[in-house]
Amino acid sequence: SWIVGFGVEDSGLEERRFPTRDELDRAAPGHPVYLKHRSGHAAVANSLALAAAGITDQSPQPPGGHMDRDATGRLTGVLREKSAAAPIEKILPVPTRDRMKEGVITAGRLYASAGITSVHDAGAEARPDTYRAYHEAVAEGRLHQRVYAMIWGWPGNHLYLEKDLGLRTGFGDERLRLGAVKLFVDGSIQVFTCAFYDPYITLDTDSTRANPRGVLQLTPNELNDLVVEAHAKGFQVALHAQGDYGIDVALDAIQYAMWKAPRPDPRHRIEHCQCVTPEGLRRMRRLGVIGSFYPHHSWYWADRHISTFIGEERASRMNPMKSAMRAGVVTVAHSDAPIAAIGDPVFGAEPLFGIWCAVNRTTRAGKVIGPEERITPMEGIRAFTINAAYASFEERLKGSIEPGKLADLIVLDRDPCAVDPWEIRDVQVLRTIIGGRTVFAR
Amino acid sequence: SWIVGFGVEDSGLEERRFPTRDELDRAAPGHPVYLKHRSGHAAVANSLALAAAGITDQSPQPPGGHMDRDATGRLTGVLREKSAAAPIEKILPVPTRDRMKEGVITAGRLYASAGITSVHDAGAEARPDTYRAYHEAVAEGRLHQRVYAMIWGWPGNHLYLEKDLGLRTGFGDERLRLGAVKLFVDGSIQVFTCAFYDPYITLDTDSTRANPRGVLQLTPNELNDLVVEAHAKGFQVALHAQGDYGIDVALDAIQYAMWKAPRPDPRHRIEHCQCVTPEGLRRMRRLGVIGSFYPHHSWYWADRHISTFIGEERASRMNPMKSAMRAGVVTVAHSDAPIAAIGDPVFGAEPLFGIWCAVNRTTRAGKVIGPEERITPMEGIRAFTINAAYASFEERLKGSIEPGKLADLIVLDRDPCAVDPWEIRDVQVLRTIIGGRTVFAR
Repeated sequence: SWIVGFGVEDSGLEERRFPTRDELDRAAPGHPVYLKHRSGHAAVANSLALAAAGITDQSPQPPGGHMDRDATGRLTGVLREKSAAAPIEKILPVPTRDRMKEGVITAGRLYASAGITSVHDAGAEARPDTYRAYHEAVAEGRLHQRVYAMIWGWPGNHLYLEKDLGLRTGFGDERLRLGAVKLFVDGSIQVFTCAFYDPYITLDTDSTRANPRGVLQLTPNELNDLVVEAHAKGFQVALHAQGDYGIDVALDAIQYAMWKAPRPDPRHRIEHCQCVTPEGLRRMRRLGVIGSFYPHHSWYWADRHISTFIGEERASRMNPMKSAMRAGVVTVAHSDAPIAAIGDPVFGAEPLFGIWCAVNRTTRAGKVIGPEERITPMEGIRAFTINAAYASFEERLKGSIEPGKLADLIVLDRDPCAVDPWEIRDVQVLRTIIGGRTVFAR
Repeated sequence: SWIVGFGVEDSGLEERRFPTRDELDRAAPGHPVYLKHRSGHAAVANSLALAAAGITDQSPQPPGGHMDRDATGRLTGVLREKSAAAPIEKILPVPTRDRMKEGVITAGRLYASAGITSVHDAGAEARPDTYRAYHEAVAEGRLHQRVYAMIWGWPGNHLYLEKDLGLRTGFGDERLRLGAVKLFVDGSIQVFTCAFYDPYITLDTDSTRANPRGVLQLTPNELNDLVVEAHAKGFQVALHAQGDYGIDVALDAIQYAMWKAPRPDPRHRIEHCQCVTPEGLRRMRRLGVIGSFYPHHSWYWADRHISTFIGEERASRMNPMKSAMRAGVVTVAHSDAPIAAIGDPVFGAEPLFGIWCAVNRTTRAGKVIGPEERITPMEGIRAFTINAAYASFEERLKGSIEPGKLADLIVLDRDPCAVDPWEIRDVQVLRTIIGGRTVFAR
């Protein structure tokens, strides 16, 4: 039977590399094994898993992805991006609706303890069971957070678009809504798949030899078509894009859709927006595109950005949240769970920790990167609250504590704006209230 | 029989508008009439011509073009851009090879009198007779100018690409070479078809009601495909793009082709580049894209730009040649014949007049527009000589008077760099020498 895992972190292993298929073969003989990298943008499979999917040493490289091979041309088991992993992902056991429902309920409990009252689910796969699981969890009163469920719009799998049900972003109610159409433009820096103008700094790998400046998971043409379609049908689009070039390709598509079919206030989003250029920020301002940043990134991975991936200069400009705010871009912060996870003692994704990261911009090794991009604690709070509410068209409903808004609020043991910035990560959530009801108390 | 003309200039008529189909019907009863606008980006047809092409009041608007209709929905006969005019252009009598040959020979004589020793033919339609006509004119010793024949790469008609002959830009010799693949991204400001981020200022026309920000003759996807194909096959591309948005779309496609298939020094070009933004210039510098400007434009049409098309602010930033040079963009000037024509007493296209235009930036009405973009006479000379040679990969062969280079030179009656800038247009060409041989003397 299949052994499927999530969260392989090559940088967390002593060897600083992925396990190989041979190591997995030895560890779990007789089982197909498939372990996803923490970034979600790569995976490692053992020999049985590769064989089950029909992936062989002779398989051609897929567009927008990469299957690593060793010097002899033999697959190592590492599969980068969806196009490489798809043959396996397609044959993996599909979680049942009940399992998904229990999953979101469990997550909701954890999230309550971290003071989270609303989530933007950036990966609600467009299958009927996804929405049914959410509906049931909400209807049973077991999921308290408000959910903005982005439609994981992989081509051929973006249910609501393809079936053209006439639904659009915002459909639903304050408990559960259809969110943006989510599309992936590029990948993850940590697996060399973000699209940059300039090459990665480590070029002696199988992956970077083939793709020295990363990959585009969707070609500009595919992206244009999808964004134009989604935009014209009334959807917000949320484009995962992190490399400087990947972000520009995303903005090109958004610009074209808005030029071709103008409509008021579409609020398209760039997710992560990690290495956006100054001009990219100006374009975002002009287009009203929201920048959604993942501040924890600088703590977890910036040291490796510097040593292995993009070098110090580019790393120091990662997550330019201060510049984004100065440029007039609506600047949102997210926790990117499950890339890091709420409650994970090593890779925590708590929003207060995210604020700490954005305020201090310190790496695990203790280096302050791009200090000019540090933001204030209040700017961090706004990025996780009112600006996030704006990003789901709900700024009049929530995101601040005001008469007439939903009674979603939390109680902290001290004021993050008053403590020493270094202490923000120690601030405790004492109580989480959603719709006036306490869902967590310490 | 057909009456076909070129050079309708609505701004030159008292009525400041195109003639209508009815006026043409009355003027030439019994003949199909088709008159192209001076810009080349529109035409007016009479009723017989429309009928012959099967264009009716019920015909749908073509993508990337526009057929004007009056308030009752009746066609006026004005057809904007290739997609609208194609049904007629396809049935027009095709000039014979001999006629084309005599045409280029006649043009060559005129050009010699204006001191022109080399031409970049930006519209060598990709038909075998085009190249045969050139070959014969050169072989017979009756065409003296050196020709860089750009391949008019309309989709479905870009012969050398489609047939994949393995030829590429530069193939040929110093007399006649294959040039860039020429593609049209947007149109002409004077017929409201350049693609801008912001609308035209005259919006109560049939054309601007439908396309307030102009048109893209090729969608970004079509352009990406063509540019990627041409670039990957070793061609330079020369993209006609004039509006700020049209130019950005052109740069997006060039960027993508170069990202996807890097090769050294492709020297892609933006033709006219009229309303490029400062950031566009920075991108051009990064990509090594050449800016090819039409300086005469500010004299002939800037007054109408201000009053009718794009308003004073955008007009004052037209043809930012000084900014382009400062940004490090290789800056070329062209005469754009036959839009204006060498030897035409009213719409002259002489290079020395172009230098005068770029140095003075004065409109017909006597207004100086964007004085900060004025260049020096020597910069103007370089734009028409060594930089133009660079744009055809021939800067080591010609473009300056140096030992070892071709003996292509002209003699003037005074030094354009020494006279009063206002006098540059009066400088006379006394002698034109190509390959050491005098081909014109006054």
